[in-house]
Amino acid sequence: MSELTTTRAACLARDDQDPLAPLRQRFDLPAGVIYLDGNSLGARPRAALQRAQEVVAREWGQDLIKSWNTAGWFDLPKRLGARLAPLVGAGADEVVVTDSTSLNLFKALAAAVRIQAQGETANRRVIVTERSNFPTDIYMAEGLTSWLERGYSVRLVDSSEELPAAIDADCAVVMLTHVNYRTGHQHDMAALTRHAHQNGALVVWDLAHSAGAVPVDLNGAEADFAVGCTYKYLNGGPGAPAFIWVPRRHQARFAHPLSGWWGHAQPFAMAHGFAPADGIGRALCGTPPVVSLAMVECGLEVFEETTMDAIRAKSLQLTDLFIELVESRCAAHPLGLVTPREHARRGSQVSFTHPHGYAVMQALIARGVIGDYREPEIMRFGFTPLYTSFADVWDAVEILKDILDREDYDVGAERGAVT
Amino acid sequence: MSELTTTRAACLARDDQDPLAPLRQRFDLPAGVIYLDGNSLGARPRAALQRAQEVVAREWGQDLIKSWNTAGWFDLPKRLGARLAPLVGAGADEVVVTDSTSLNLFKALAAAVRIQAQGETANRRVIVTERSNFPTDIYMAEGLTSWLERGYSVRLVDSSEELPAAIDADCAVVMLTHVNYRTGHQHDMAALTRHAHQNGALVVWDLAHSAGAVPVDLNGAEADFAVGCTYKYLNGGPGAPAFIWVPRRHQARFAHPLSGWWGHAQPFAMAHGFAPADGIGRALCGTPPVVSLAMVECGLEVFEETTMDAIRAKSLQLTDLFIELVESRCAAHPLGLVTPREHARRGSQVSFTHPHGYAVMQALIARGVIGDYREPEIMRFGFTPLYTSFADVWDAVEILKDILDREDYDVGAERGAVT
Repeated sequence: MSELTTTRAACLARDDQDPLAPLRQRFDLPAGVIYLDGNSLGARPRAALQRAQEVVAREWGQDLIKSWNTAGWFDLPKRLGARLAPLVGAGADEVVVTDSTSLNLFKALAAAVRIQAQGETANRRVIVTERSNFPTDIYMAEGLTSWLERGYSVRLVDSSEELPAAIDADCAVVMLTHVNYRTGHQHDMAALTRHAHQNGALVVWDLAHSAGAVPVDLNGAEADFAVGCTYKYLNGGPGAPAFIWVPRRHQARFAHPLSGWWGHAQPFAMAHGFAPADGIGRALCGTPPVVSLAMVECGLEVFEETTMDAIRAKSLQLTDLFIELVESRCAAHPLGLVTPREHARRGSQVSFTHPHGYAVMQALIARGVIGDYREPEIMRFGFTPLYTSFADVWDAVEILKDILDREDYDVGAERGAVT
Repeated sequence: MSELTTTRAACLARDDQDPLAPLRQRFDLPAGVIYLDGNSLGARPRAALQRAQEVVAREWGQDLIKSWNTAGWFDLPKRLGARLAPLVGAGADEVVVTDSTSLNLFKALAAAVRIQAQGETANRRVIVTERSNFPTDIYMAEGLTSWLERGYSVRLVDSSEELPAAIDADCAVVMLTHVNYRTGHQHDMAALTRHAHQNGALVVWDLAHSAGAVPVDLNGAEADFAVGCTYKYLNGGPGAPAFIWVPRRHQARFAHPLSGWWGHAQPFAMAHGFAPADGIGRALCGTPPVVSLAMVECGLEVFEETTMDAIRAKSLQLTDLFIELVESRCAAHPLGLVTPREHARRGSQVSFTHPHGYAVMQALIARGVIGDYREPEIMRFGFTPLYTSFADVWDAVEILKDILDREDYDVGAERGAVT
């Protein structure tokens, strides 16, 4: 066992000095739980309960149909988009919160493919992505290509190193998840976007594990389209609607087949023939689920109390600490670090393999340390600087060590589903 | 003015005898309001507030990620579908609640077109619908056809009478809204479905203004696919997720391009390559908005206290009474009945034109009678037997009469958006 460079007291002292520590009070976290699964479902902002009551009791119950105007329900997708925009380096009029990540990805891919189908790039018929991408991203790309005219296909690349070469003269669109859901590996968005553009491709970024987790500068990177999730690091509530970013320069030619009335220039004119709204509104489709949508605002508000730079600084401290403690305190056990050590390549999660990863994770959860498990053998631990303390990290590792030392896990445990 | 056959006292007496009257207590309605807009946004079931608090405070806040299993979030789309199914003559394993009506329509149309593209019907490339259909339905059909291989198109029929002839040898799919959103006209589902099948077409029904409003027997009619809304007559909350019905006989070949992980046979295997779930699960796409979704259950539970036949009987009594009272009490004014008098052709709403329909509706709303307005000149009044009384109908007409008699409306009123 290597020598420990920290102690629990030192962790508590870091918490005392942590400028983000007071933000933990903005969240309702259960007693006795160390929640390291905010990369799957973010914790509940305290404000969300009152907001839910307002929306359900007053806006829906009392003001009824009038609330579309008086409570601002109509503007909610755009208002939330404008509030989310600074977190990902987007303009306020470039983001809407709507539908699921999968559906928004479909819109973005369709639009990118359509743009490439015009002009000299029309012969490009391949969407390039990684085999290790989150499955639904690949499924949606396959769904799109298999319904387009003959000749479109999805090309899966086996490793990040092979990506640059795969972006060849057949490649219309590169679809990448910025931070990998399983490994926590972070791509260099600016460099990959530049490389894709130099090779004639457009890039669609999935920010599911980036938004609110790491600094993102979509406009700085000159990215083409992006989508992301609000119920992970943004703490918008279970299954809360996702977001989509379309930069101003692409908005006029942003076209997709999911052309519902909310994306129409004049939805209430009940006009015949679809005429897309000017600007980001054309990324909308049908009526949004207002109660879930309203919760997103409570998550976003908390971010306005700090900066993504401050969040990133603490995130790296938390993940560095976790890696150091696991590797020192649990050195006797067959744990393998999957997440990059290099800061620039790391998201806000740490993944370790263990031959009995599923059973060990179940034992951790039973002891109040909530992470999750992903095939094969991967235990995921998400670190959310808004509500995770340094002492949490220490305590989580002590519990992990105890479970491993005593082999206090059931290798025959039946596997349930987790998202 | 024709002779009145009823009085307010008689209306109150009917309320006393009404077996559905006690169900009004299941809803939270604001004092001083006669709510005749349940065809746009249904009233709030009292249970919805407590349910929202449970989902937000306990399921999300306290149980966090575990709630996907322990609170049954995973099963919610199917569980709600099974509960909704009897209201539309569907099997319990044939319906899911998910996404918006627009998106579900896209899936159903895509699947129907794909089925027709196989075999002897492959030359059929036209989707037939009515020009008077709800615009988003037409927009979604246009969105689909314009992205399919060359040759697909949408054919708009100008009147219901022209429909049968339009279902010709080029017609792949007939897309109809069962009850028209503007006129309240109800199609004969069984007869039109039979006619379409005899002519080689499949039929997709939009039940937005039917589910919970009129008896529907999808399996009895041998319909092919259906979608519908939960936030109107089903009282599921603002923008609550919609439903989609795929009968068992079509499930194995139900394919659409929105192939997200929730529609995968094993969503958590994180497998490569999309393999659709057996059964209705393949109509799902991305993660659903749980808080909004949970509200739908509160709306559906109220329907289990009665039957669609009882609801229909009262609905016809309410709409008959409204027509009779408006035509007798307001006979001096230029009101034109748009909704069919024939019961079999009528939904659960009544629409009247008035040259100043928008202004009159604004005056009604200011006086607490909440209906809505649709271009051109149409005042819509929805009658929801679960919470509308006969005395409400009487009082609403008295207020309408007073506004019209005194010309107490502002013809210059600016037009806001309503949904």
